[in-house]
Amino acid sequence: MSISADPILLTPGPLTTSRQTKEAMLKDWGSWDGDFNAMTTRLRERLVAIVFGEGTHECVPLQGSGTFSVEATLGTLVPKNGHVLVPSNGAYCQRIARICQYLKRRCTTIDYSEDQHVLASDVEKALVSDPSITHVALVHCETGAGVLNPLDDIAQVAARFGKGLIVDAMSSFGAVQIDARRTPFDAVIAASGKCLEGVPGMGFVIIKRSALEQCAANSHSLALDLYDQWVYMNKTAQWRYTPPTHVVAALDCAVEQYLQEGGLASRGARYARNCKVLIEAMAKLGLKSYVAPDIQAPIIVTFLAPNDPHYDFKTFYQEVKKRGYLLYPGKLTSVDTFRVGCIGHFGEAGIPGAVAAIAETLKLMGVASLATSSVT
Amino acid sequence: MSISADPILLTPGPLTTSRQTKEAMLKDWGSWDGDFNAMTTRLRERLVAIVFGEGTHECVPLQGSGTFSVEATLGTLVPKNGHVLVPSNGAYCQRIARICQYLKRRCTTIDYSEDQHVLASDVEKALVSDPSITHVALVHCETGAGVLNPLDDIAQVAARFGKGLIVDAMSSFGAVQIDARRTPFDAVIAASGKCLEGVPGMGFVIIKRSALEQCAANSHSLALDLYDQWVYMNKTAQWRYTPPTHVVAALDCAVEQYLQEGGLASRGARYARNCKVLIEAMAKLGLKSYVAPDIQAPIIVTFLAPNDPHYDFKTFYQEVKKRGYLLYPGKLTSVDTFRVGCIGHFGEAGIPGAVAAIAETLKLMGVASLATSSVT
Repeated sequence: MSISADPILLTPGPLTTSRQTKEAMLKDWGSWDGDFNAMTTRLRERLVAIVFGEGTHECVPLQGSGTFSVEATLGTLVPKNGHVLVPSNGAYCQRIARICQYLKRRCTTIDYSEDQHVLASDVEKALVSDPSITHVALVHCETGAGVLNPLDDIAQVAARFGKGLIVDAMSSFGAVQIDARRTPFDAVIAASGKCLEGVPGMGFVIIKRSALEQCAANSHSLALDLYDQWVYMNKTAQWRYTPPTHVVAALDCAVEQYLQEGGLASRGARYARNCKVLIEAMAKLGLKSYVAPDIQAPIIVTFLAPNDPHYDFKTFYQEVKKRGYLLYPGKLTSVDTFRVGCIGHFGEAGIPGAVAAIAETLKLMGVASLATSSVT
Repeated sequence: MSISADPILLTPGPLTTSRQTKEAMLKDWGSWDGDFNAMTTRLRERLVAIVFGEGTHECVPLQGSGTFSVEATLGTLVPKNGHVLVPSNGAYCQRIARICQYLKRRCTTIDYSEDQHVLASDVEKALVSDPSITHVALVHCETGAGVLNPLDDIAQVAARFGKGLIVDAMSSFGAVQIDARRTPFDAVIAASGKCLEGVPGMGFVIIKRSALEQCAANSHSLALDLYDQWVYMNKTAQWRYTPPTHVVAALDCAVEQYLQEGGLASRGARYARNCKVLIEAMAKLGLKSYVAPDIQAPIIVTFLAPNDPHYDFKTFYQEVKKRGYLLYPGKLTSVDTFRVGCIGHFGEAGIPGAVAAIAETLKLMGVASLATSSVT
């Protein structure tokens, strides 16, 4: 198999991982064995340390995709008579509200359009007007459009009102700073196949120990009961149910590389450079990003589709793929867009290469004079 | 990394996979991409065909361990006012009962000791005496002790009474025959890292379409809603939430090898040979299997621990591991045992090699004269 021929994934996870990370999967592990348990323990400690939660927070990993961990967190931390406030500016916020519906947890949303970010002042107003709210659930980076929400501001408001804060940090964890020492939260949720550059198949939640200790009988689900998973893991160093051993080994290897790269400062800076180069180079082609620069997260960028009868996403996608890059469709309902990820293991040439492939494709499709027609 | 130095896993999954299966993970896949969707579709079709469910049954894969799929099946197929009968002869049966508790589905058990198999006549009696029962949930191979339960007999009884049958076939699927054309069932549940010899990280459920179509509003969980997963997958060919792409690729590759090996007939026969050789060779060492031969599944064998003050499992495990084999602890509460798996990708020399390592270890530990003292 020729590895070098594989396309670069410019998607918000699964993403392109290093050869070393993939090779960590060339070994079978006994899920009960001491060597595997030691790996799980090391990984949990390192994940807590990334958000400076040592001593106060616990890492509870969970099988499944990130959404499984989001649901598990809501089900475990929010009591049955709880009330969740969801400031909502995109698809992943809406998913939290949908989970609350399934779980029969009361839920109130504050609705924004998808190019806006959440305002701490709105959260404050909602908490003042409805004291029955027990938790705020925030999506840190809303990859629906690519907006970064002001986590710290909202955390301060939630803390001031004594409310629990649950953060879906799926696509920001490890690349955008979260510091448990100064940003109070009950839970921060992420997954293996995002900015830590592991492969998909497990999530993990960093939970304030004092909050988790109160959650013995909350969960609606055995498989998704993070309290039960935590108690068992602390007692045995093992996962409750069969862990995705190869995925765990890949994440352990990816986190080692993350630390060697220089941790969050380096990883975040690399993605920010990718993002900047991408937006600038696309602008030169006349392709405008949908989100304003000051609230754009350095994770994924939504671009307005060319307003040209020769453009269709399917052809565009296939032609760019032929040239070695996988793009991502838009997720907005109101406007035709596509997305380009800034994250993953690829070099400085990755983004310029992708933009060149996009330029070539648009030319081929007859979507020619964008730069002239769109720049105003 | 020296692959040949890795120990053989004699565990009931995760197990030893082929080099080819692991190498299928050396590629990153876009979860939205057509190539990946085609792989998912092919895999679903092949999994249905293994139980001859073409035209009548649907394969719904799910992220997470096998237990996630068991809970998802119970939550999706059993309505909120349903009543589940669990003939219970081991740990995995008890887990089903525990899941029903979490899900607030009424549950009745028929309790057996762990060296007995379930009797269809007992199931029939229970169905006669309580018509409110809507579903029977059976564990096909109860790996707690290694007992094979008589699936077909119980399926006929359930069908005669018009009850739904849910089968946890986690450790039998692909090695012990299940034929949807003559054994009626609503759902058969299994996972990637068992007899198909993939890596762990996903489950899948083969569900009778006419049953699944009735299940729109049952599930207690969004992530575990198999109906929602199925509808989305049929519409898009994609998974609802991020799939464990590398695990899916490994399973696809493993199933290809499974078919090349000759499918169930060959795989089942290979495991049965392993099981026979294991039990006979261990008997020569004086180590008795816990389950009677006529109800022993060819998947994993429970052995009574040597009744000798020099024996302790921890030392035994470590010494056998040094010699290249990972054993599995017992799961019985009443009697001290250990388990040896018969499944996984290893050659005919695997089991004799393991027994030699066990013999050497027991001698080293001073547990010497078993054969003389135990054979009567």
